[in-house]
Amino acid sequence: MSMTQESMDEFLNRLASADPTPGGGSAAAIMGAAGAALVSMVCNVSIGKKGCEAAEPELRAVLAQSETLRRRLTVMVQDDVSAFDGLMAAYKLPKATDDDKARRAEAIQASLKRATQVPLDCARACGEVIALSRRAGEHGYQQVISDAGVGVSAAYAALRSAALNVFINAPALKDRTFAEQASGEIDQLLARAASESEAIYALVRGKLGG
Amino acid sequence: MSMTQESMDEFLNRLASADPTPGGGSAAAIMGAAGAALVSMVCNVSIGKKGCEAAEPELRAVLAQSETLRRRLTVMVQDDVSAFDGLMAAYKLPKATDDDKARRAEAIQASLKRATQVPLDCARACGEVIALSRRAGEHGYQQVISDAGVGVSAAYAALRSAALNVFINAPALKDRTFAEQASGEIDQLLARAASESEAIYALVRGKLGG
Repeated sequence: MSMTQESMDEFLNRLASADPTPGGGSAAAIMGAAGAALVSMVCNVSIGKKGCEAAEPELRAVLAQSETLRRRLTVMVQDDVSAFDGLMAAYKLPKATDDDKARRAEAIQASLKRATQVPLDCARACGEVIALSRRAGEHGYQQVISDAGVGVSAAYAALRSAALNVFINAPALKDRTFAEQASGEIDQLLARAASESEAIYALVRGKLGG
Repeated sequence: MSMTQESMDEFLNRLASADPTPGGGSAAAIMGAAGAALVSMVCNVSIGKKGCEAAEPELRAVLAQSETLRRRLTVMVQDDVSAFDGLMAAYKLPKATDDDKARRAEAIQASLKRATQVPLDCARACGEVIALSRRAGEHGYQQVISDAGVGVSAAYAALRSAALNVFINAPALKDRTFAEQASGEIDQLLARAASESEAIYALVRGKLGG
């Protein structure tokens, strides 16, 4: 654990620093990946346990999906940094001539689109983690059922965090069709995740007798 | 970032594994620490920025507290593992004689108390991070204000996650006074955090125009 502890400290130091990356977008992707990892843990512990035999095919299906989502979300940690860096680079392009200005404006718009798309993809993936955490909470081994509740809480926090980055970038987009589709989808994802994550948390809490 | 990426992958692999630690309790402490780190980042970026001069003493005060909380929460990642290991070790003590049984029961109760106290402390610290994220969201630089919203989401998820570990361990405690105090305090922390984190998220979202 000490190696992990050191690496954790290093990441948190970078997060806390005045350097804008890694920032909230990366933190969102990591929380989503942690949510997926906790769903995987529930499955990994439950598979082969007495009393979980009937649920084994379901747990294996959930595990395959949670591991795919974990990989996707882990990649997004870096995607968020590069989307942010791309946007900063676009703003720094020369604007001496009209030609410069046109090129710069185009680069900014392309970067803004990417900086909207990355958190939208992150939020979608987190919505899928939430759905999986319900199945893990319903079928997982009692001893690790609380981890499904931690998983859903992490994934919901991640989705809300990713949504903030859509709210930041979508208003400045000139492509209003894309911007409004993205904002509309984020609002739907947020609303669904709010009620779903409450229900899953209550399901898990009920199983704990707390 | 690649070193951080590797260490992150390593932590997530350990989280996802069939090994019960690190589990939900450690994930809770890390999310809380990430929330504190994001509050620190908002302060670190804002201090010295044009327009933030008047808020500088406030931002410095918030930063000092968020860094203290980050250190406390980082230590809890390991505390949770050792509390869990202590409980597992107590359950494995010999129970051949009446003397053995009494010693084992006592060790289990002491370990359960610690396994309730650690997540209760984690939840308290997360409640403080939530309060700080409001101050960061109110006074921070506009460009990083969304990170206060990510911070509050992370800290709230951490508090809810820690609460689950109190719900697991408190019912088995023979010291009912302690158990009921812990459960009562957790319920209060959860209720306060639910409304407070919603209000802070709305405050941040409003500032983004999203």
